[in-house]
Amino acid sequence: MLLDKLNWRYATKKMDPTKVVPDDKVERILEAARLAPTSSGLQPYEVIVVTNPEVRARIREVAWNQAQVTDGSHLLVFAAWDNYTPERINQMFDLVNEERGFRNEGWENYRQMLLNNYPQRDPEVNFQHAARQAYIGFGLALTAAAFEGVDATPMEGFEPDKLDEILGLRERGLRSVTIMPLGYREVESDWLVNLKKVRRPKDSFVSVVA
Amino acid sequence: MLLDKLNWRYATKKMDPTKVVPDDKVERILEAARLAPTSSGLQPYEVIVVTNPEVRARIREVAWNQAQVTDGSHLLVFAAWDNYTPERINQMFDLVNEERGFRNEGWENYRQMLLNNYPQRDPEVNFQHAARQAYIGFGLALTAAAFEGVDATPMEGFEPDKLDEILGLRERGLRSVTIMPLGYREVESDWLVNLKKVRRPKDSFVSVVA
Repeated sequence: MLLDKLNWRYATKKMDPTKVVPDDKVERILEAARLAPTSSGLQPYEVIVVTNPEVRARIREVAWNQAQVTDGSHLLVFAAWDNYTPERINQMFDLVNEERGFRNEGWENYRQMLLNNYPQRDPEVNFQHAARQAYIGFGLALTAAAFEGVDATPMEGFEPDKLDEILGLRERGLRSVTIMPLGYREVESDWLVNLKKVRRPKDSFVSVVA
Repeated sequence: MLLDKLNWRYATKKMDPTKVVPDDKVERILEAARLAPTSSGLQPYEVIVVTNPEVRARIREVAWNQAQVTDGSHLLVFAAWDNYTPERINQMFDLVNEERGFRNEGWENYRQMLLNNYPQRDPEVNFQHAARQAYIGFGLALTAAAFEGVDATPMEGFEPDKLDEILGLRERGLRSVTIMPLGYREVESDWLVNLKKVRRPKDSFVSVVA
């Protein structure tokens, strides 16, 4: 079931500009990202959904002119926290206590351990760590799109600094990491759609220590 | 369906040491990782499946003594390439040509672009980039485990250098990034199993530019 969906999806190269992904599908794709696990449950990233055509046209200019950015109906931008701050850490631990309705000593010790370690590190180290977490959600959003029959293109080919400027991300303490147009494949004009999906054979991807 | 599975899974804290995940389930979990998309399709990581109890006992010692490492039946180690080399890039592009049965000018130009850029970069930059890709496969393996009814714990809490040494990864040009024990939750003794899954509310995770 899952494997069928992963085989169905591919990095769509040409999307039909006349088709729009329905809201309920976009919601479920975003929900998969929201439910994705992250280190210490901090969810150190946000997703920006860009539908505005003018804004997407500007983003396309800083994304190697890739047509899916404007041919799709939605562009998801995954943007990681630029740093781990005490405020951000506390906000998540407070939310957990509030939602679960109690405080727990082990959990509070864990909070202190993070507070004593993360904010003191180089912000670049923290950003890189946060960015990795965003890739988990990114992968789950791609998977969710496949379950919805929605095409998606995972993209790293863009200028993060310029995208950050277009969306005003730095002011919000965020830095763009990956982008994902959502739409529907245009089968007649997508050079990749009928080509075989190629992966390394299992024996050069997996090894066993038994 | 997917969302149900994501809600079902959680970072299992106590696994039943008497239960073993069947091979066919492990195979499908690994296959999800193998099918995961990666930047330029390079698949710049491998998965090491550790079942050997002595080896897992040693890994547990460098993984904050987390019991899931030995209580589960399998430990998946995601290890990223330590660098992008011309050999590694060519191997993947050659494989694609071989599998698809033809050479394509655009694809060859893309190969050259990577060859002209990646190997010249700082190996640490390349490793960090490869590590991010591993997180996509890591997320899909976690998702696949949920579809199989198998519990899994995503873990970054270990000493990568020591784990690399135990598994001899550096000699293979690999560096460990994340680990994932597979097993079955021990409901009576897992403090987390019945606690509410907490995520930031949608309005502080998603924003829209319409």
